[in-house]
Amino acid sequence: ISLLSLGVVSQAATNEPIQPIKAPTDINAGQAELGKKLYFDPRLSKSGYISCNSCHNLSMGGTDNITSSIGDQWQQGPINAPTVLNASLNLAQFWDGRAEDLKAQAGGPIANPKEMASNHTLAIEVLKSIPQYVVEFKQVFNSDQITIDQVTTAIAEFEKTLVTPGSRFDQWLEGDKTALNDTELAGYELFKSSGCTACHNGPAVGGSMYQKVGLIKPYQTNNPALGRFDVTGNEADKNVFKVPTLRNIELTYPYFHDGAIKTLSEAVNTMGEIQLGKTFNATENAQIVAFLKTLTGEQPQITLPILPPSNDNTPQPQPFN
Amino acid sequence: ISLLSLGVVSQAATNEPIQPIKAPTDINAGQAELGKKLYFDPRLSKSGYISCNSCHNLSMGGTDNITSSIGDQWQQGPINAPTVLNASLNLAQFWDGRAEDLKAQAGGPIANPKEMASNHTLAIEVLKSIPQYVVEFKQVFNSDQITIDQVTTAIAEFEKTLVTPGSRFDQWLEGDKTALNDTELAGYELFKSSGCTACHNGPAVGGSMYQKVGLIKPYQTNNPALGRFDVTGNEADKNVFKVPTLRNIELTYPYFHDGAIKTLSEAVNTMGEIQLGKTFNATENAQIVAFLKTLTGEQPQITLPILPPSNDNTPQPQPFN
Ligand code: HEC
Ligand code: HEC
Ligand code: HEC
Ligand code: HEC
Ligand SMILES: [Ca+2]
Ligand SMILES: [Ca+2]
Ligand SMILES: [Ca+2]
Ligand SMILES: [Mg+2]
Repeated sequence: ISLLSLGVVSQAATNEPIQPIKAPTDINAGQAELGKKLYFDPRLSKSGYISCNSCHNLSMGGTDNITSSIGDQWQQGPINAPTVLNASLNLAQFWDGRAEDLKAQAGGPIANPKEMASNHTLAIEVLKSIPQYVVEFKQVFNSDQITIDQVTTAIAEFEKTLVTPGSRFDQWLEGDKTALNDTELAGYELFKSSGCTACHNGPAVGGSMYQKVGLIKPYQTNNPALGRFDVTGNEADKNVFKVPTLRNIELTYPYFHDGAIKTLSEAVNTMGEIQLGKTFNATENAQIVAFLKTLTGEQPQITLPILPPSNDNTPQPQPFN
Repeated sequence: ISLLSLGVVSQAATNEPIQPIKAPTDINAGQAELGKKLYFDPRLSKSGYISCNSCHNLSMGGTDNITSSIGDQWQQGPINAPTVLNASLNLAQFWDGRAEDLKAQAGGPIANPKEMASNHTLAIEVLKSIPQYVVEFKQVFNSDQITIDQVTTAIAEFEKTLVTPGSRFDQWLEGDKTALNDTELAGYELFKSSGCTACHNGPAVGGSMYQKVGLIKPYQTNNPALGRFDVTGNEADKNVFKVPTLRNIELTYPYFHDGAIKTLSEAVNTMGEIQLGKTFNATENAQIVAFLKTLTGEQPQITLPILPPSNDNTPQPQPFN
């Protein structure tokens, strides 16, 4: 009987547009451990103050929870910082998909003058000056050089560990029919029947395609980003963005690429109107919101890395130049 | 025989001017766990970006490793950020001792316009709006209110856990005579015979008294801080500062209240000259530096807290206005 019911369960799960998040496999532990240090190391920034974790805070769903990020010298970032959680599942990185994968992405912020404001030469010089890093890079990459390629490889490997299995919704998908209450289930049914899963699907409930924002009705924003158009130059790609993951969406407020939508309730109503031409009543909205909150998974349990100290010859941080 | 040798060991330790750091006792675990969340929570700042850990980074010896800190709007702080590690052992808090203890200290930065730039009313309003905080404060303090007194009590309790026992020097003090090499031991002997232990003594190797900086020769600095004078108004207190702990000194560069001294080697030579009228040769300097590096203890192993998400009615962070 239990084999039979397992069979039924896995068939049910197969028919769903959303699949459970799986624990990461094939992680190179040495690279990931080194990558964790680099992810938390503000010495990759010019000021010595900003790390990846400053904007993708792993205490806060892998985001900064502000409209647009604070970069070097408190510069205002151009767009809302997406979560790094489950980012390995994205078809490409950034709202406009301009980076092919996590490794291609990771070099960007270090050298971006509005973010960490360093440059690859300086970042490598800093790392090379720190004896414990020299030892650890050597152990991990079996090379006497430290290169930006190794840095981005290690950071990407760490990021691959940042998946969030075990959400209540995944428990339900995996056969525990008590994991969701009636409101949440009704919300899931509405999410499917309304057409949300046309775009938000797969294990990440998003991240698998590009879509126009404002299919039915334009999305009003002051943000100048044009999405895929900025990459391809094709008229048809104007306002086409990567469909964001809805995993951990309860944690990754504010919403949309401009960060202008403060609540999940508002995000759901806006999506209904601009993508599907649907107006949800208060009950329906609350049901969908309740469902979306079941997508919060187990957050990665991170032991704060202890960073190796700088050496007397380490280039000084330049916070105020 | 082993009892006898233990007796000798503890007698030896008793005669030393430095005592081992002890693991913290009498910690209220609930308060400390809540305090850890608050310590890492940038929502205690106006911008939503700055937490205690931004300036007292527990990946980096409880400091920010920059000359003077970066506060709200990238304002430059007035003085070098001291470590929070072993701060519970200080006779009082801040370079000038103006806060009696950790609890009295913890309210300051939240409301300091140059640091977190919030205020206590707003910080409490934020916390009260977050359902999981309401539950946790209630559990920990058995009260229906959230007060700034509870906030500072919890943060201080967490900070009491941030001690660093187990350094190689402490192993040596506790009887493992192989824990230090000859250079390090020679450095310790010089540290004592030169008179450093007149000021840097006790378990924290500092933190137990106020002393004039520039006893023998004035310390040249552009930093306007006048130390105890700013608290007492007594002429005699000009340039009198709390003697800082030398625990984990390898990690807490740059040095001195103005953060102007970049290397430990330079700090040792300057101290010799301005406090004792002594000039160390290169060998002596290297020996003292080698000894000081044995004071690096086991860093607190921190599991990054997962912060409870904001609610729809949580006051929005104000990073850019
Ligand atoms: C100053 C803030 C800031 C810093 C620092 C920062 N990021 Fe980002 N990150 C952003 C913003 C904003 C975006 C979105 C940019 C865009 O899409 O055009 C982003 C996008 C990403 C993405 C793509 C996610 C997705 O779903 O498309 C990843 C992955 C990422 N960052 C990882 C990192 C790593 C690794 C570091 C450190 C090496 C880092 N970030 C440093 C703000 C920051
Ligand atoms: C045709 C594609 C499409 C459909 C249908 C769609 N979405 Fe979206 N969704 C997107 C895109 C693209 C974005 C990114 C919008 C932006 O950032 O400007 C998005 C953003 C979101 C966000 C905010 C995510 C974030 O991290 O900022 C939520 C929540 C959301 N959608 C929920 C829904 C719901 C609920 C439905 C159904 C009512 C739905 N979506 C239907 C494509 C779609
Ligand atoms: C913007 C940077 C910044 C932030 C944020 C910050 N601090 Fe500090 N902290 C400092 C500086 C600078 C000093 C030294 C000030 C002085 O002595 O006048 C200091 C001093 C201290 C001290 C005294 C240590 C000693 O040895 O005297 C403690 C303890 C402390 N901070 C804890 C905290 C806590 C807890 C928080 C969060 C509630 C916090 N700090 C937030 C920069 C910061
Ligand atoms: C008469 C008291 C006194 C004596 C003697 C003394 N110190 Fe200090 N030490 C201080 C004070 C006070 C400071 C803080 C100076 C400042 O920040 O401006 C300090 C700072 C330091 C620092 C920098 C700590 C930090 O975190 O910035 C080091 C290292 C140090 N002393 C080592 C020594 C050594 C080595 C000796 C002996 C050669 C010595 N000290 C002798 C009082 C003393
Ligand atoms: Ca967001
Ligand atoms: Ca006291
Ligand atoms: Ca320092
Ligand atoms: Mg790809």
